[in-house]
Amino acid sequence: MTEEEPRVRIGMVGGGPGAGIAETHRIAMRIDDRFALVAGAFSRSPENSRKAARRLGVAAERSYASFEKMAGAEAARPDGIDVVAIVTPNNSHFPIARAFLKAGIHVVCEKPLTDRLDHAVELDHLARDRGLILALTHSYSGYAMVRHAARLVRDGGIGSVRIVQVEHASGWAAKRVDSKQAAWRTDLAVAGKASVVFDLGTHAHHLLRFVTGLEVSELSAELATCVEGRAVFDDAHVQLRLTNGARGQLWASMAATGQEHGLRIRVFGSEASLEWRHEDPHHLVVRRHGGPVEVLAQGHSGLSEEAARVTRVGLGHPEGFLESFANIYREVADAVHALIRGEPYVPDPLRLPTGRDGVLGVALVEAVCFSHENGGRWTPALVDV
Amino acid sequence: MTEEEPRVRIGMVGGGPGAGIAETHRIAMRIDDRFALVAGAFSRSPENSRKAARRLGVAAERSYASFEKMAGAEAARPDGIDVVAIVTPNNSHFPIARAFLKAGIHVVCEKPLTDRLDHAVELDHLARDRGLILALTHSYSGYAMVRHAARLVRDGGIGSVRIVQVEHASGWAAKRVDSKQAAWRTDLAVAGKASVVFDLGTHAHHLLRFVTGLEVSELSAELATCVEGRAVFDDAHVQLRLTNGARGQLWASMAATGQEHGLRIRVFGSEASLEWRHEDPHHLVVRRHGGPVEVLAQGHSGLSEEAARVTRVGLGHPEGFLESFANIYREVADAVHALIRGEPYVPDPLRLPTGRDGVLGVALVEAVCFSHENGGRWTPALVDV
Amino acid sequence: MTEEEPRVRIGMVGGGPGAGIAETHRIAMRIDDRFALVAGAFSRSPENSRKAARRLGVAAERSYASFEKMAGAEAARPDGIDVVAIVTPNNSHFPIARAFLKAGIHVVCEKPLTDRLDHAVELDHLARDRGLILALTHSYSGYAMVRHAARLVRDGGIGSVRIVQVEHASGWAAKRVDSKQAAWRTDLAVAGKASVVFDLGTHAHHLLRFVTGLEVSELSAELATCVEGRAVFDDAHVQLRLTNGARGQLWASMAATGQEHGLRIRVFGSEASLEWRHEDPHHLVVRRHGGPVEVLAQGHSGLSEEAARVTRVGLGHPEGFLESFANIYREVADAVHALIRGEPYVPDPLRLPTGRDGVLGVALVEAVCFSHENGGRWTPALVDV
Amino acid sequence: MTEEEPRVRIGMVGGGPGAGIAETHRIAMRIDDRFALVAGAFSRSPENSRKAARRLGVAAERSYASFEKMAGAEAARPDGIDVVAIVTPNNSHFPIARAFLKAGIHVVCEKPLTDRLDHAVELDHLARDRGLILALTHSYSGYAMVRHAARLVRDGGIGSVRIVQVEHASGWAAKRVDSKQAAWRTDLAVAGKASVVFDLGTHAHHLLRFVTGLEVSELSAELATCVEGRAVFDDAHVQLRLTNGARGQLWASMAATGQEHGLRIRVFGSEASLEWRHEDPHHLVVRRHGGPVEVLAQGHSGLSEEAARVTRVGLGHPEGFLESFANIYREVADAVHALIRGEPYVPDPLRLPTGRDGVLGVALVEAVCFSHENGGRWTPALVDV
Repeated sequence: MTEEEPRVRIGMVGGGPGAGIAETHRIAMRIDDRFALVAGAFSRSPENSRKAARRLGVAAERSYASFEKMAGAEAARPDGIDVVAIVTPNNSHFPIARAFLKAGIHVVCEKPLTDRLDHAVELDHLARDRGLILALTHSYSGYAMVRHAARLVRDGGIGSVRIVQVEHASGWAAKRVDSKQAAWRTDLAVAGKASVVFDLGTHAHHLLRFVTGLEVSELSAELATCVEGRAVFDDAHVQLRLTNGARGQLWASMAATGQEHGLRIRVFGSEASLEWRHEDPHHLVVRRHGGPVEVLAQGHSGLSEEAARVTRVGLGHPEGFLESFANIYREVADAVHALIRGEPYVPDPLRLPTGRDGVLGVALVEAVCFSHENGGRWTPALVDV
Repeated sequence: MTEEEPRVRIGMVGGGPGAGIAETHRIAMRIDDRFALVAGAFSRSPENSRKAARRLGVAAERSYASFEKMAGAEAARPDGIDVVAIVTPNNSHFPIARAFLKAGIHVVCEKPLTDRLDHAVELDHLARDRGLILALTHSYSGYAMVRHAARLVRDGGIGSVRIVQVEHASGWAAKRVDSKQAAWRTDLAVAGKASVVFDLGTHAHHLLRFVTGLEVSELSAELATCVEGRAVFDDAHVQLRLTNGARGQLWASMAATGQEHGLRIRVFGSEASLEWRHEDPHHLVVRRHGGPVEVLAQGHSGLSEEAARVTRVGLGHPEGFLESFANIYREVADAVHALIRGEPYVPDPLRLPTGRDGVLGVALVEAVCFSHENGGRWTPALVDV
Repeated sequence: MTEEEPRVRIGMVGGGPGAGIAETHRIAMRIDDRFALVAGAFSRSPENSRKAARRLGVAAERSYASFEKMAGAEAARPDGIDVVAIVTPNNSHFPIARAFLKAGIHVVCEKPLTDRLDHAVELDHLARDRGLILALTHSYSGYAMVRHAARLVRDGGIGSVRIVQVEHASGWAAKRVDSKQAAWRTDLAVAGKASVVFDLGTHAHHLLRFVTGLEVSELSAELATCVEGRAVFDDAHVQLRLTNGARGQLWASMAATGQEHGLRIRVFGSEASLEWRHEDPHHLVVRRHGGPVEVLAQGHSGLSEEAARVTRVGLGHPEGFLESFANIYREVADAVHALIRGEPYVPDPLRLPTGRDGVLGVALVEAVCFSHENGGRWTPALVDV
Repeated sequence: MTEEEPRVRIGMVGGGPGAGIAETHRIAMRIDDRFALVAGAFSRSPENSRKAARRLGVAAERSYASFEKMAGAEAARPDGIDVVAIVTPNNSHFPIARAFLKAGIHVVCEKPLTDRLDHAVELDHLARDRGLILALTHSYSGYAMVRHAARLVRDGGIGSVRIVQVEHASGWAAKRVDSKQAAWRTDLAVAGKASVVFDLGTHAHHLLRFVTGLEVSELSAELATCVEGRAVFDDAHVQLRLTNGARGQLWASMAATGQEHGLRIRVFGSEASLEWRHEDPHHLVVRRHGGPVEVLAQGHSGLSEEAARVTRVGLGHPEGFLESFANIYREVADAVHALIRGEPYVPDPLRLPTGRDGVLGVALVEAVCFSHENGGRWTPALVDV
């Protein structure tokens, strides 16, 4: 926040008692003090929404039990919210995001953008047509060392990309899941049959695109269910062909027993390769042909401007998941203020993920499902957007 | 924050333009939304202090240019601050802390508590006599896995402690330091001759005490200056005898070329040993005699309540330096609210560091200097407190 | 060697001046002092073969310039070789191995066994029919921690296997290869179009089979050439279905820029997962659901008999590649002596690789090629053997 | 072995049934095929010595039950041994080495050279006066990456050395030791009161000297016994002053519960630092001020000639403890052959450890003991040699 830039007014849909990711969003908003949370449809129960509002310091009259009402009322207020954060399950993102975009309110949406490609496309168009921000919290792209990786590849630091190995293979659901907070991800009705691809595959896909600047043009996939009795796919193996002719593999799993969160990427170029792992997010490993291996740390002198920009504390003071999330929010605030100043909003592929990323993520999921259902047939994964 | 517990009103001394650690404190206050920053003597220049206040959303009339005035004015207000955070250089902590404690205001003070033992003792007595909180930001003890380590040792998980190897050996000042923000640490007048012990040695010492529950009874030390022309000691090697008869080594350095921040501890017991490194703070390694080695991660099921209590996000979502700092602030808020509820405030050795820790830290520095000046003579390091 | 068991007499085909892997075989033979190298067709040039013989302490009259003559002459001698080691390029293994097996001499053959499936089958039958040892130097299976992994999986230590991720992705040929010693691996005529699968894919495949005890039933593959102008495939991505229904991915590459040798395996079971990497071969990581992660080291008490049996030095004294190779040779010597004592030779899936492994390796290569040529069609990879 | 250079004839004293380190020596001799083991006083029991001889392929008439007889008889034979390897406990090294040196036979001696400084000096003089090789198996200095580290420091690659942190802290004796093979190291009569310094401290000391090219000029030490009832010191903490003014710490322990073998060194210079750990011996980490960190691997192109010379297999094929030991033996063979060719033998500080190293090692032990007994008094550790 600077003197000229007051806090961005933000509201939230979802995030009532027991919600998981909502608190992450709220901490991320607070870290850089760029937002004021002033409204919310935290729950469909008026009472629960009011309770959450009180706890969060939101005025009672700006606590809503319906997102439609919230969109209408906030759009009508002179001090209405600039931005809404949507933290509900996947299958509700579309109507909620549509309502706020139609009301002229910027949107920060949990990923995946929607559960159907046409819906994603509609939201992306809506936002673009109206010059609104549609941000997607593929928050891992907010890490300083991921930013540095992306810059390094863009600058030719590893030569031309040949092979990509990316995975988001978590062990969290390697056994039956009982926690209510997490159970919706194995619920066919809410998460969809391709749950693991929606939930984790899209993160891996976005990371690949963010770091390499390449798109997945075609893929061949096989889905599986590892845990007996589970109604959704919990494991996905995908072969990739990228737009520059590079090849790769993507593995998404919620049944990778014993792995922490399991997001990692390796990109092999003609001159060097790089590796980033979410278990150790403040380092980036670069391996040159013949050696040596370089381990870059957040805070090292000589890192790119892209990394330095999202670094709050010095070398050796690790920033983590919440800070990476905050980096996305900080860029939302930057974008809102730029628009307020009358500057046009042009998405930057090395900054916050947007509607286009959301569309391509859902397209990936649909291509994976199609390929799986057709014996692994190579299937286009890239749509015009 | 809960419904019953409004935000704790906090002020700050120091933290004007160009200040380093102040922003860390402010982020730490915000992360859990337990504080409202409502006053500050951010600078001795009235204008700079006002500027900072405006930027931070602090009302103009509660921006001060003198800590004495601030202490007086805030103590007199019905809505005066509950707590002050002191983020000035070491040699000013004493008068500032004393002024606020005398005004009945709780204190969060940067480490080291003071630059003289008698001053530290005076502050500690003042706080205790008045039932006030005197918290010290040895923030590394806020990490979940440090908390778990401390619990593990207390519960006999490594047997009886025999050997401790602890170091805080950073490479930040391995060359001449030009940055204004950092230069005071190599300035004899501000940081004192024993700068490296005050700045980093006290962190290592506190970590040792926090994890093991033991005190350093005697030590033998040698100080050195590695970087030519530097007026202060930038390297300290210390041999330790602990209160239970265990032995150890402590190394503090700001000239450990190429190391990140370099805080790490290993504790060897009769049954197992443990290792924690700040480069990878969300893991703790436990090595049993004969094997295997266990790597515990923040978020693993089965960790202690002490670790779970300071964990915000799940397994595989690393929390970092800012979160560890926020954990100290969260416990300050807990303590303030407990006092407000009329509960007595009893420091807990597995929670936030207090005046007693500050006194022992300064006692360590004095013992190190005495031993060094006396050819490494074994010197008592423990004072009654 | 024991008193009753004199050194096994061994000869070598290949391994003259400039040969790479031959010296590895010879060191491996010497480490446990179980072999005497007494004959060799080290080169097709009589002079070069004699020179090598002299250098190696082999009598001049047992230096040959033709493997056929060597097989005949050695079979005819009362003190003829018990075993021959074949260390020539892939495309010559078949005639050489056949000649020695027909002469009643045991064979240790470099992998892959042959470059055609029918040839591999013929060798395997030949050896079995005559009760001869046909050992294949998939030497990585000789590592103590690989042996322990295999035992752990067999004993249910990770539950039922669900997912396998295996790769042998080396960076050695990420640029054009000029070294004469290595160049044959990118020579279409010698290494075959599927060079990377023959050379590295078969190692990954064998490691998967050795550790899991499962077979690859079907696969879908894509081959690629990363380095411009190269006549062979240098990169292979393969999707796997295993005999128990588990899924997996195999990646073989000689163009994984910057990777060391790049052999690693992860096996995910219903209870835990394990990981072994050739960059750190004396450790094995076991991750239990919910934690903790266990790092087992060669020499730890409590490891399996399979690991202890191939451990020469104690904990913390790493054994490396040459020792793993020596373990295979040691088991060849054991098998020869068992036969001499009149005991039957029964291959043990937790000991040295044999003709059956060779046949399945070549079958894998053929299945990969077929799938690649047919748009990634799922292709059976398992043959009766 | 080359055509011109027949195998070096070697004998062994010690190494009968149940001996530990002897087999390591024998494997090390065999790896490069430069030695023929032709004689031995493997045991003081004639029968046991004969048994060992038979098992090792040594002729019966060259099996001895007394080292004196062996020295005499071998010196008298025209085909007598060139070198003897002494693998008995510490307190017998002196008379044995003296006997062979007096007989004109080169000596490879286990470390420490002797258990008294005057004895070490006498052996060193004896060897030098007669132009004989007196090699000491501080085998860790045989690792390729240790060699590279030494070259890097010599070439100014880390600037001027400021701080050294070295430790050999093993967990092997963290509990009472029952194994007969190891028990002598806790036996006061055999290992001496300062057992841990003799056994492990001298390794750490040699590694420091080998890598830095500096000597320890003075030290301050404290010894301790961690395991109840143990008659010898099992833990040593030492402060160091080096000849160039650098400072450091040395920690030697056999009670570092849970550590593998625990040898590691960090050297901090004015420009960069380096780290080598025996748990991962084929890598060397170099950290430059401000970053990045470089991880060098054995086999990387661009490593020094000193590293390349002791590398047998390519990048990614780890060589371990036995190979490092073999490197020492290889250099013994080189030296013997050089002498046979009439070239003078001049010890090279970047190759095999010699009598001078042995003398300084024993001097270190005596200085540590003196300092400990005198309240940690700073004590000279460097003797003329």
